[in-house]
Amino acid sequence: MNQRIFSIGLALLLGAGYSLTAYSQAKPETLVKQRQSAMVLQGKYFGPMAGMAQGKVPFNATVIARNAVYLEALSHMAWDGFNPSTSGEKTRALPEIYSDAAKFKAAQDSFQANAAKLVAASKGGDEAAIKAAIGAIGKDCSSCHDNFRQK
Amino acid sequence: MNQRIFSIGLALLLGAGYSLTAYSQAKPETLVKQRQSAMVLQGKYFGPMAGMAQGKVPFNATVIARNAVYLEALSHMAWDGFNPSTSGEKTRALPEIYSDAAKFKAAQDSFQANAAKLVAASKGGDEAAIKAAIGAIGKDCSSCHDNFRQK
Repeated sequence: MNQRIFSIGLALLLGAGYSLTAYSQAKPETLVKQRQSAMVLQGKYFGPMAGMAQGKVPFNATVIARNAVYLEALSHMAWDGFNPSTSGEKTRALPEIYSDAAKFKAAQDSFQANAAKLVAASKGGDEAAIKAAIGAIGKDCSSCHDNFRQK
Repeated sequence: MNQRIFSIGLALLLGAGYSLTAYSQAKPETLVKQRQSAMVLQGKYFGPMAGMAQGKVPFNATVIARNAVYLEALSHMAWDGFNPSTSGEKTRALPEIYSDAAKFKAAQDSFQANAAKLVAASKGGDEAAIKAAIGAIGKDCSSCHDNFRQK
């Protein structure tokens, strides 16, 4: 590989706020930006599915099958950004995220499991099952925001 | 499903800037936020892999296997945000994105194909092949930023 490829990689690495010796120690503001990005994209792909489950948007099994796979991947991307080092950043994250870490982890696990169930349901083609799986994820969103996000 | 689940779904839907009748018509500022979120997360997961390919971060096949899958999913998430309706937003996107749409699409296709190749390579466990696949993606990043992003 040539030096130019290495350079862009290095630029991205540094741009992402990672140190070179310990990539997991991103700056607090970088962690916040990354976890908020994951939330934005969860909204992008879950929003239309929630609308379909409610009958507000025409049901489209192809879109759901695609969005479900994306959402399942995204369901893993936010949580390592909730590091105590970010407590001083201006966000809506509540301190319960760190003081009740087990409950926060259980909320993540539930969302991830339900996202995987939606992927499976979306392959089955049963509209009622798909809508129920979407509803379960909506409940996860609601519950986690109620418990861990400032009103 | 109960009304509360519907409510959170609806709130997310509206929060994401989608109209209820045409979810693809998100507001320009929403499209920008979503596409930038995809770029932030591409950096999150590609950055450490670029560091590993350069020998700046210890090679970790487990992290690469995970990041490659996430990056492949993310490689599909930014492009529908580059809609001409966003031309008035303050971003670094160059007009060539729309005036040379075929070239922009080819750049997306290359990145997506190389991300899929990295997923395959990461399952094979051949360190040199993995590093070469990471390098190919770095080249895609560099080339697309050179052609379509303001310096």
